[in-house]
Parts: sequence; structure tokens; C-alpha cells
Amino acid sequence: MCLVTDTSRSPYALMRPALVNSVALEDGFWAPRLELLRRVTLPSQHRQLEETGRISNFRRASGRAGGEFSGFYFNDSDVYKWLEAVGYALAYSHDKGLQDLAKGVIEEVAAAQREDGYIDTYFALERENERWTNLRDMHELYCAGHLIQAAVAYHRATGDRILLDVASSAADHIASVFGPSRRPGAPGHPEVEMALVELHRSTRIEVYLEMARFFIDQRGKGVIGGGVHHIDHRPFRELNEIVGHAVRSVYLNCGAADVYMETGEEAIWEALERLWYSMTERRMYVTGGAGSRHEREAFGADYELPSAHAYAETCAAIANVMWSWRMLLASGEAKYADAMELALYNGVLPGISLDGKRYFYVNPLADRVGHRRQAWFPCACCPPNIARLLASLPGYIYSVSDDGLWVHLYARCTARFNLSDLMVKVGQRTDYPLDGEVVLVLDPEKEMEFTLRLHIPSWCRAAELRVNGEPIETAIIPGSYAELRRVWSTGDEVRLNLPMPVEMVLSNPLVLENADRVALKRGPLVYCLEQVDNPEADVWSISLPLGEPPRAEARPDLLNNVVVLRGKAIALDADFNGKLYRPMKEVSVEKRRVEITAVPYYAWANREPGPMTVWVRCSRH
Amino acid sequence: MCLVTDTSRSPYALMRPALVNSVALEDGFWAPRLELLRRVTLPSQHRQLEETGRISNFRRASGRAGGEFSGFYFNDSDVYKWLEAVGYALAYSHDKGLQDLAKGVIEEVAAAQREDGYIDTYFALERENERWTNLRDMHELYCAGHLIQAAVAYHRATGDRILLDVASSAADHIASVFGPSRRPGAPGHPEVEMALVELHRSTRIEVYLEMARFFIDQRGKGVIGGGVHHIDHRPFRELNEIVGHAVRSVYLNCGAADVYMETGEEAIWEALERLWYSMTERRMYVTGGAGSRHEREAFGADYELPSAHAYAETCAAIANVMWSWRMLLASGEAKYADAMELALYNGVLPGISLDGKRYFYVNPLADRVGHRRQAWFPCACCPPNIARLLASLPGYIYSVSDDGLWVHLYARCTARFNLSDLMVKVGQRTDYPLDGEVVLVLDPEKEMEFTLRLHIPSWCRAAELRVNGEPIETAIIPGSYAELRRVWSTGDEVRLNLPMPVEMVLSNPLVLENADRVALKRGPLVYCLEQVDNPEADVWSISLPLGEPPRAEARPDLLNNVVVLRGKAIALDADFNGKLYRPMKEVSVEKRRVEITAVPYYAWANREPGPMTVWVRCSRH
Repeated sequence: MCLVTDTSRSPYALMRPALVNSVALEDGFWAPRLELLRRVTLPSQHRQLEETGRISNFRRASGRAGGEFSGFYFNDSDVYKWLEAVGYALAYSHDKGLQDLAKGVIEEVAAAQREDGYIDTYFALERENERWTNLRDMHELYCAGHLIQAAVAYHRATGDRILLDVASSAADHIASVFGPSRRPGAPGHPEVEMALVELHRSTRIEVYLEMARFFIDQRGKGVIGGGVHHIDHRPFRELNEIVGHAVRSVYLNCGAADVYMETGEEAIWEALERLWYSMTERRMYVTGGAGSRHEREAFGADYELPSAHAYAETCAAIANVMWSWRMLLASGEAKYADAMELALYNGVLPGISLDGKRYFYVNPLADRVGHRRQAWFPCACCPPNIARLLASLPGYIYSVSDDGLWVHLYARCTARFNLSDLMVKVGQRTDYPLDGEVVLVLDPEKEMEFTLRLHIPSWCRAAELRVNGEPIETAIIPGSYAELRRVWSTGDEVRLNLPMPVEMVLSNPLVLENADRVALKRGPLVYCLEQVDNPEADVWSISLPLGEPPRAEARPDLLNNVVVLRGKAIALDADFNGKLYRPMKEVSVEKRRVEITAVPYYAWANREPGPMTVWVRCSRH
Repeated sequence: MCLVTDTSRSPYALMRPALVNSVALEDGFWAPRLELLRRVTLPSQHRQLEETGRISNFRRASGRAGGEFSGFYFNDSDVYKWLEAVGYALAYSHDKGLQDLAKGVIEEVAAAQREDGYIDTYFALERENERWTNLRDMHELYCAGHLIQAAVAYHRATGDRILLDVASSAADHIASVFGPSRRPGAPGHPEVEMALVELHRSTRIEVYLEMARFFIDQRGKGVIGGGVHHIDHRPFRELNEIVGHAVRSVYLNCGAADVYMETGEEAIWEALERLWYSMTERRMYVTGGAGSRHEREAFGADYELPSAHAYAETCAAIANVMWSWRMLLASGEAKYADAMELALYNGVLPGISLDGKRYFYVNPLADRVGHRRQAWFPCACCPPNIARLLASLPGYIYSVSDDGLWVHLYARCTARFNLSDLMVKVGQRTDYPLDGEVVLVLDPEKEMEFTLRLHIPSWCRAAELRVNGEPIETAIIPGSYAELRRVWSTGDEVRLNLPMPVEMVLSNPLVLENADRVALKRGPLVYCLEQVDNPEADVWSISLPLGEPPRAEARPDLLNNVVVLRGKAIALDADFNGKLYRPMKEVSVEKRRVEITAVPYYAWANREPGPMTVWVRCSRH
């Protein structure tokens, strides 16, 4: 019963996800990544957790090891995120080695818990008296949230209750300290809200939901002395603009969306919609990246979206996927599936190298300073966060509502669902995202009527849909769900064609840096020019002729199989002689015709370093 | 004997400035501004200093008033900067009211000094024991520096010694606490270095120079625990890139240049040159503005120069003028005069409103959020800093070297110099910066041979020079000093024509935001498009056709007499329907021919609010 978010009994959710373990990926894109995650990434992250003292901090807290606490005060959360990832991976893979590693870690975690349920290794021993004294800065509730998420996932995936019992005790302890009739408080870094709702969904214990709502209600009232950075400057329901630390901000929205799905409170939903438009229409990169400022890892002002100096933390794109997902579950609106797909392929995936061993924390959209992925970070939030999202990916492809089945993402896979107490098997055949042809073959236990809803991504303007070879009469609207209601029987075939012409995307010119530039997209993928593919000219000096988009070309040999975009362009070699500003009449601009090659942005920086850009200059000549 | 920097006995200075009080401005540009400064700005700043408790802090420290210290711990510096400005103003204006105000303030300052010479009102009374305990953050040396600068200026301008005695005592106290054989230390905010050199120049007391050098030598050695922000990450002589808090960074360079002019230490000069190129070729706005990051008011990375989100603090542009000035005095190289002129007209001057009552702290190069000047700031460094620079402006126009006279800036004025113990009077007639025709009429006490050097700004590619009507044969090189050595007699007339065609300036495309944009310049002035002058289209959507620069048009009625630039352009009305990104083929771009009007950037935001931009999109169609 492993669900990424168990909305099956959430009164204000429109659908519940498919089980993570009921969707078997068989594709050339995600399946190898999940295999790599299990074989390479998760074991190597375990080594990092050991070598950097993150697991030893638990041993120290339980008295099994001595020495000093090592690293940041929030380092427990990295261990929990890794456990969550392993949980999901074990839901659909047998991996004794990984399971043993996880069991060992869980045992260390359990031993570090105090009798009263409190657990945070930074506040063990010498700092025990400082517990809960600085909610704004010290991440105790944040770490507890990650513990709870890990525990719920691990329990749902494996049935093993040990970590769930630890998490429940921790949650009970939190509920004994904070609450309407107890201490006021809210986390300086949201995270525990969505975790508590999920724990409620797993246990049906009401107080966990109450605590989640309580922590949201407490914000913006001066209780913890936070500001915009902590999204503590205004009460949640009064927020109009997405601000502050991007991960904090979007995690908070995840928790609020979870609370909404349980309570149906309109004021929460309305705030979430305002924040959604604030982000997606004014403060989000074309990749789905969020948080443009290095300064405090924060959202910028409207249209403040610099490319080379982008922050766009990998964790913020992950948060974007998680938030979009919850908004989708609540509403069934395709715009959330669009955002989820965009951020997944272009915001999250660049965060991990093709060999599964290195990570981006910051994701610039243009570079020439040699920005490269790292094996680990002192603040290592991103690596295990990518791991838990990728590990849970099978759970995001489908969901189920009272009247049928929803398809949100496309990938070759075989899935099983329980619809009205009948089993339906669905085979999906596609080379997505390399190609937009998708064939679904349905195999219900017996003939049954239900609605099949297919996500028509907003990028696709010419989708075609056939059932058993017959074209569908009704118009297929980009950015919607195409609905097919009928009696389905074994072998019924739904053929969805999502043509993927190469698109030149324009930015609102209020983003000053992107005026008179284009981004190249094909299907769900954002492309970039990397120097290694473009020996003829510096990619920052390349100008694309408008009206002549590059053509797609399959390159199975390149970057683990990609479609590249190739075309003609102009190189503008301007001689600035090292100067910053020169009178135009003294700058000789040599124009040369060049051939260019663009690759998917997620795959950049996996070869020789060199300049890169997503937004390419364009010209009408 | 009022000099802004008295390099007359500095062994490694090539020249000494003209006396502030020997240059009488008679022009339509600066003279009214200096008059406004005296009549409106300085009295209104005095009121602000009183009303915000800055002067009361001195009364409190001397026991004449009670209550709490008010405002920031560095607020004394605002009072000192105001006194410095008044000092310069009194050098060339009789203003009893202003003089009485200053005398009153000086009396309050003097009374607040401790017996041992220490003076800082924040560290009076209850915080007396905390003196000099946090050099990195607490600005005691910074405030002392401003006291010294004010005292030197006030003494040179008026002959009044009271403040100079206070400053000397304070400096003696500092020298009794810090030094090679005493306590280590350096200011977290440089400023005292240049002040101490200037005090040395006024008093010839060697220890002040030694202390200035000591404070520079102490940096980058872990003495105060500062970092890049404080330019304490590396020893000064090893700096390669201009980094950190922009004002701190450039003030430090001013102090180092002053030390160089006294000591001739090559390692200092070489570091200054590296920092100069780092700033002017990679980290400076086209306006001479410095420090692109709001985050810690800092220099950005190379080519990180966002327009709408520029910081470009007014104080940093002032610092740029002060640094350029010192580099010029030391070397006689015209590139420093170029930078000084650029920053003065386009970096400093926008900092004050045309009515002399409101100030910019931050100077964006593009705006649509209604950025407006304010009457004052809680951190009010900029207003009195502008005041002291403008008040001392007559001192920057000319300087004198052993072999003659240098003209750095052009403005109608009458000046007197002592050259080899003979008086030379020079009349300058020009409408600069409205027009580039300059006539100098020389009137030496008796016939004498000397070299007249005229700054040929680098923006001027076609300067013409005549002496008594005869054209000069030698080539006149942009960005140089044209040298005229001859025997001069009364009535000799030098006619310099600096044609001011409208220039379209390109930015190095490594500044991503400025690629495919142009800035308009005419003479020393950078222009901008302000919405109020351009009703036909949003100025952010205007695209200038290349090769067809706008034409200059005199508008004596506008903005206190400006030359505007008028021309034809294209408005690109792109329909984004509130979206951030759209496929090109769905964006209808309507092109309309429009007339545009650009005004000098220094004058923006003096009328109705609306969008503004310096960098204008350009196109070849």
C-alpha cells in the first residue's frame, strides 16, 4: 500500500495516487535512472552519510559513540530523506543490501530517541536544555518532519513499523508540547506540516492533522519572530505573493495543500491559488526552477530571473513538483500536471549527474564560470531530496478517482489499479520524452465503465487521440485532461499522439535579460546550447534566426540517448577588446553563419566544461 | 588654503588640486546646484540631523541631554559629513546662518569628546567599556575618519581650529591604542585611512600617515576576523579583484592611493591598478555606478550588472569619484579623469533631486516599480555624502603641477592659481555639459612659460584645439591630456571643441542583460527613456533602430535646462496575456513606429513615476 501521498480518504481530494509499487517502469528514460539510483546513488549516499558523521550523530546521541556533534544542526534530515528514498526503492525492488543498510540506520535512529519521544541529535546531551528554544532557526520541527515522511514511506513500502513508531512518538511529543492549549510555535522551516498530515493519513489519528493546521495558523503572528525569509511576515491565508526562502515557501504550500485536502478550507485554497500564479506567472524559471536569489536562497521580485546568477536550488524544484502534485490531487486541473512535468524534467533532473554520483545545488540557466556538480555538500539537502523524489516517481504517473483513471505523466510502464473493487491493468507503450506517441492498452478484470483521463500537456497544440483506431470527435485542448468515458474491455487500445515540434519560447520582456532571446523546447524538455557541441562559436554569442527553428535529430549515442536540436544560426563576434562598454561605431561585429546543436538542459555539464546558455539571442536577419 | 586633498607636498603625487575657493563657478549647471545646496539642502539636512537625534546623541554624550542613544551606532558620521560639506561651502560662500549652524554643531561635538581624546557617542556612558571591542562591525574608526575629514576641510576652509583640535586629539588617541608596538587592528569599514593621510598633510605629523599605512597593512591577516565583505580576506597588496561591500572597498582604495602618494610604494600602486581594471572593465555600470548586489551592498561577479535590480549605491559612486581623483593626482592619466567625470554626472548626481531635497540610496538603471527619492533614510550615509562632494566640486576642476596647469572638468568659471610663485587667472567659458565648446582665456601675472593640459575625454573622438585661433598640429587623442607648452601672456585664448554627437553605446555581451541593447550617451551624459516623455509606448518595449541615433534637441524649459535626444524607434507590443513564457508562434508582436525622447539619467524620477530604462533594446530593422 505504498502511496506517495495517501489521499484515498481525504474528503477534498479529487483523486488518490496509484501505488508506487503497482507501476512498473519499463522505459529507457526513467527505469535506468531508478536502477542507477538503487545500485549507485543510494549506496554512495549512505557512504557519505557515514563519512560525514551524519549517522554517527545518532550513535553519539544514543551513547554508542563519543566525540562532538558534527556538521550542521539540521543534518539528521539528510539521513531521514535517504531512508525515505530507500523505502520507496524497496517498494518495487528487492535489494537485500540496501534493505540491510536501511535497517541498520533505522536501528541507530530508534536508539537515539529520548524516552519522551523527542529526537534530534543536535539537541542531545550537552544541548538537551536548549530543546525547542529557537523554533525560528534551529530546524527541530523540520527534522521531525523528515523523520515522519521517511517513516510513513518506509512503513507503506515495507510494512516495517519500527521507524513509524519512532515517528509517531516524536509526533506525539510535539503534540504534547505545542498546540492551541499548550505552547505557541511554528517551524522556521516548514516541512513538518505535510509530514503530519501524511502521518494522520496513515494512522487516522486526528491530532496530527490538528497540529499541521495549528502550525500553519501560527505563522505571521510574531510567535517565532520570523520575517519574510521564514514566510512568517503575514498569516498564511493573507499571502498574495510568493516570497522568502524558496524551499521554505513551497514546502509550506505543500503542507497547506495537504491540510486543504483534509479540511476543505476555502481561505487556504484561495491563498494557494494566489501563490501559484505569483510563482508561475512572475517568479519561476522556464525550467520550473524557483528562487532566483542567492541572497537567502529566496524568491526574487516579479520578473527578477537572472540566468547566470540564478539560484534555482534543486530542492526548490523538487518542492515545486511536490506542491504541483498536491494541487493536482486536490483540483484535477491540468496546469498543475504541466508544472509538475516541467519541473521534473528541467528543474529536478539537472540536479543529478548522468552517472548518478554528483549533484547540483544551484542551477544557473547560463554559465561560463565552470559550474559543476559536486559529490556532496556540507549542507547536503539536495542529494537525498533528489533521491527520494526519483525513488517515488512511479507513484506520480497515474492516479485514481471515483469515476476512473488519470494519466499525468507518460513513460513505458505496466500498472495495476483497483477501480470500484475491480482490477484494471494498463500497459503504456511510448518512447516519451524522446517521442510523443503513447499507446495505452487496457485490461480490466471484466468489462467495466469508467473515465480515462489523459493529460494533454499545455506545450502540445496538436494532440490526436484514437480509441481502437477511431479518432475522437471532441476537441482536444492543450493544458487539459482529455476524458474518455466508456465501457472498457480487455485489449482496448488508446492511442495518444503528442507531436513534439521544436518550439522557440519567448519570455515576457519584463524579464529584462530574456528580451530578444528565445529558449528552445521540444515536448516537455527545455534545451540549452553547450559549448562542447558548438565548436564554431561561443554559445553566448550565437543568435538564432527567428522563424527557422532547429530540427530534431535522434542521437542514441549521446548523453544516454537524447534528441538533439540542430540548425543554422549567426555568430556575432563583437570585439570589445576586454572593455565593458564601447561606442557602437567602434565595435566591429563580425557575423558568421554557424551550425548549432542544442541538448536537453537536464543533461548539461556531463562532459567537458564550457559556456552554456538556455536563453539564446535571436534576430530577424 | 582649502584643498580637497592637499597633495602639494606629497612626493609621489604628480599634481596638487586648485583651491576650492579659488575657482568661482559661474555656469548654468553646477553653480545653481551649489547655490541650492547652500540654501536648501544643507539647512534641510541640519533639520534632519536634529530631528532624528543625531546631534542629540552628542548632547547626550556630553551630559547636556538625557535619554537613549538614537539610531544606528554609526550616526555620528552623518553629522561629520554634513560639517565637511558646510566647511567647503563656507570656503567660497558667505552664509552667516550656515556658519552659525555649523559652529553650534561643532561646539556640541567638542563637548562630547572624552578627556583621552576618544569620541564616539554610541560608546559613551553605558557602553564606555565596549570601546574598541569590535573593530569589524562597530564603525568607531569609520566615524573617527569622518570627523577627521570634516575637521580638516572645515579648518582649511574657515581657519577655525576647534574641530581640528578635536580631530587631532581623536587621532592621537587612536595612535595611542593601535599601532605596530601597540594593539593590532583595522577598521571593518575603511575611511579613516584617507582621513589620517589628509590630517598628516594638514599637520605634517608623521604618526598619522604611519597609522593610515598600519591600518592598510593589518588587513587580510585575521586581525579583526572580517571576510570578503570587509575586504579583510586577503592582504591589500595581494588583491586582484574588486570585491565586498562597494563603499568599503572603494574607500579602502582611496586610503591606499593616499598612502601611495606619500610613500611611493609600488606594491600598493600595482594592487590599485589591478582593482581599477577589475572594476571598470568588469564590475561597473555604464553610469559609473559600483556594487551591483543588494546582498550586502556588494560588488558582484564579473559582468553581473543587472539593471532593474542594480544596487549602485550613491555613496559608492561618490567613492568612485574620490578614488578616481586620487589615482589621477598620482598618475596624471586621463582614464581616471574619464571615470571621475562619468561617475560624477551619472552615478552621483542622480542621487539628489532637482529640488535638492530628496535622495536616492539605490540607483537602478531600469525601473517600473516606482523607485523614488526619499527625504532621508534611517541609514543616511548618502545625503550628506552627496552634499560634501558637491560642496567641494570647485576643487576638482583644475590642478597644478610643477610645470603647469591641468584642466580635468569643464564648467564656466573663473579661477586663480599660483604657478611658480606667479598668479595666473583663467577664465573658462562653456555651456558644458550641454555643449562641448570650451574657451579658456589666460591671464598670467606676467608672461610665463608653462604647460596647459586639457582633458580630452575618452568619449570625444573629434576634439579640436586652437590657441589664439591657430589649430594645433599634433594629434588629439581621446582619453588623454592635450599638452600645450608655450609662453603664455594675458588674453591668450585656448579654444577646445569637444563635439558631442549622440552615441549608441554597446555593452560587452557577457553582461547577459545588455546584449542586443544600447545605451544612449551624449558628451559625458548617459541618457534614459522615461515613461513621462514617451506616451506612445512602454519604454521597456521600445527598440531603437541601429545606425540611426536620435538627434539632440535643446530643451531649456525641461528639467532645469537639458538637451534631450529625440528619434524614431519601434515599439514591440508583445501579447503575453500575463504569462511569463509563451511559444513564439502564439505571441503576436505588433510593431509600431514611435517617436522617442530620452533625458539625462541624472534627471530621472523628478516628474511623474513610470517605467524607465537606460539600456534600450535595439534592432536592425
